[in-house]
Amino acid sequence: MSSQIITLTTDFGLADPYVAEMKAVILRINPNVTIVDITHQIEKFNIKMGAFILASAAPFFPEGTIHIAVVDPGVGTERKPILIEAESAFFIGPDNGLLTLAAKKQGIKHVYEISNPKFMLPKISTTFHGRDVFAPAAAYLSMGVPPSEFGLELHEISTPTFAGIIESGETLVGEVIHIDDFGNIITNFTDKELNKFIANGKIHVKLGETELSLNVRKTYAEVEPLKPLAIIGSHDFLEISINRANAAKFFNVKVGDKVTLYRFLQGSSTYRHRLFP
Amino acid sequence: MSSQIITLTTDFGLADPYVAEMKAVILRINPNVTIVDITHQIEKFNIKMGAFILASAAPFFPEGTIHIAVVDPGVGTERKPILIEAESAFFIGPDNGLLTLAAKKQGIKHVYEISNPKFMLPKISTTFHGRDVFAPAAAYLSMGVPPSEFGLELHEISTPTFAGIIESGETLVGEVIHIDDFGNIITNFTDKELNKFIANGKIHVKLGETELSLNVRKTYAEVEPLKPLAIIGSHDFLEISINRANAAKFFNVKVGDKVTLYRFLQGSSTYRHRLFP
Amino acid sequence: MSSQIITLTTDFGLADPYVAEMKAVILRINPNVTIVDITHQIEKFNIKMGAFILASAAPFFPEGTIHIAVVDPGVGTERKPILIEAESAFFIGPDNGLLTLAAKKQGIKHVYEISNPKFMLPKISTTFHGRDVFAPAAAYLSMGVPPSEFGLELHEISTPTFAGIIESGETLVGEVIHIDDFGNIITNFTDKELNKFIANGKIHVKLGETELSLNVRKTYAEVEPLKPLAIIGSHDFLEISINRANAAKFFNVKVGDKVTLYRFLQGSSTYRHRLFP
Repeated sequence: MSSQIITLTTDFGLADPYVAEMKAVILRINPNVTIVDITHQIEKFNIKMGAFILASAAPFFPEGTIHIAVVDPGVGTERKPILIEAESAFFIGPDNGLLTLAAKKQGIKHVYEISNPKFMLPKISTTFHGRDVFAPAAAYLSMGVPPSEFGLELHEISTPTFAGIIESGETLVGEVIHIDDFGNIITNFTDKELNKFIANGKIHVKLGETELSLNVRKTYAEVEPLKPLAIIGSHDFLEISINRANAAKFFNVKVGDKVTLYRFLQGSSTYRHRLFP
Repeated sequence: MSSQIITLTTDFGLADPYVAEMKAVILRINPNVTIVDITHQIEKFNIKMGAFILASAAPFFPEGTIHIAVVDPGVGTERKPILIEAESAFFIGPDNGLLTLAAKKQGIKHVYEISNPKFMLPKISTTFHGRDVFAPAAAYLSMGVPPSEFGLELHEISTPTFAGIIESGETLVGEVIHIDDFGNIITNFTDKELNKFIANGKIHVKLGETELSLNVRKTYAEVEPLKPLAIIGSHDFLEISINRANAAKFFNVKVGDKVTLYRFLQGSSTYRHRLFP
Repeated sequence: MSSQIITLTTDFGLADPYVAEMKAVILRINPNVTIVDITHQIEKFNIKMGAFILASAAPFFPEGTIHIAVVDPGVGTERKPILIEAESAFFIGPDNGLLTLAAKKQGIKHVYEISNPKFMLPKISTTFHGRDVFAPAAAYLSMGVPPSEFGLELHEISTPTFAGIIESGETLVGEVIHIDDFGNIITNFTDKELNKFIANGKIHVKLGETELSLNVRKTYAEVEPLKPLAIIGSHDFLEISINRANAAKFFNVKVGDKVTLYRFLQGSSTYRHRLFP
């Protein structure tokens, strides 16, 4: 398993020299690698958002891709720099849960602490391990250095706590796991839950303080502009959207907010509160 | 005609995994292609802005470049995914007018519907054809698959309606076609119109509610800082600018606004309303 | 000394076709070069910010890298397009001080005016030398054209004036040279000044109207969340930061603001004004 692709996922933004310095360090070690930005606009210090974005994008990359992710509020403290060898990819970053969701999806085989100074920059800052530790590790890995050379094997890693889905009587309670740039509200429900709660092509949802019945559609444009809908999105999660508008702004919803699915009741008045008749 | 460059123009923004997923799909099929971002900051659903940006940038790329563009409010509906073979480039995206301006500039030879599932991802979402249809089509095209293999030839495509220029008595009425990140106001007038309406190195313009006489200059810095000017910009359109400031904000102008050029009248008082004496 | 990396640093933003047009021009001349964005989000016309970012990132790139930088309010006027040959890199851009800081760090050997039309686009706009002059020059340089072929040697270049550090009695006065996307306040003090003014692990600082004593730490996370600290950052400058928050917003500080270091006085009451007890 070898790779010529290294990806980057960070909360660094694009105005500073930080991302370019990571790329420079990589290219100095391996000039032939292809570097792909996943995003540098993870909300600062938001490990869960980083974990979600990385886990969404990583499976589309070729076998052997090396993913670096840096959302690292604990940089320089005792949290360990790690390298995860998965079935079909590698993940490099801080051991704070950022890598775990993506790595589990691709089958974790081994985890190593990155501690061998041979594969770091000669001078390690205490504030920028992305450049001084993670970038060179990824570059050396892409040159064929075996994962076990980077440090001792670890048998435990941090895992971010994503809310599970809670069933309670006639409801399922989940949460908003991401709001994309279009304002689509991405929940942790999948078509498994959807299929149990759909009736006559509709679901009944509580989102923040708003209760509403939504048509379940296959495309955004199947409803009129400015009308809401429910849809299974491109990552197989239930999304609540508004055609050609920003649903998250309209419903005033943010990541982590509760989303409740109500079981359809024959003849009930549950559907009274529709905002969009 | 073969190419190793694929460009991307979308309204996806840079915070989500969407752009990276398109790149991942491309690199999985053709690891040797060079991917260049034109922009991912087209205003959401603004097909005309996407068409303008793509048509501006595309002619500078090498012969045979493959341009993917995705501003696609109708994704998953009956609008067709298309591949346009032009004299010196290829264009891939939805048939909603986004590609037409750029493709016409480079001489359209053939248009094909992209319908052959052999050149798509095995599972096609209804919300993200950029990743599931357009990215693999571009990658297979870059590998040498002939355009006609992707689907049936089409003999009609959508064309966005850009305003023409209307002559009426002593005026020409055009429109603002783009406002760039510096706040330069780019109109649909070219030096052809400019040359007819310039007098003593000046033009007289109405922009929203503001009438003003502008010096026509060759560089922004030929006027003092914070002074306005007219200039033929780097895409050969007439721009209204303010040296070192944001003209669009100052004049409160947006894309689509009317711009009127007045014919210079010998001895007239037309130039009375100058804002910047 | 040859290179296959060209970097770009501009104030163009990412919404317009300008950056892509520069890349297109480069790839048309040298399809095998690797292009790396340093940033396109330099504040419009802010030459000092551009100079700082470029000088921060450039040293991490491999020997022979060609850096193009364009923050160019004087485009098309008499300011000269230049090519700087340094010990370990090349710098291409306007002669307005933008390149000087970075080039000096890497040892300037020769400076040439770029005036040979053979290495420009056939048609030069007066508003976009990034695309028409600097991009082709970099591409031809990467193809092996000797620097002296581009034009006459120059013996003087512009230098931006960065504030020096002024010692005055018991204080050192420096300035804020950059505020990064995390809100870290980067000053022009280094550990040389820090070591003279530190006492009991603390420094006493005046920042705008705020006086405060700060613990000097090695990592952000060594203080509690929302507590301030002083730290030598990853570019070896003294930074004033708040763990997991935006220090620049909190202290209402901007680039160019004065920062004063006070010498620690045994038994003084200087530390009275602490904001964060």
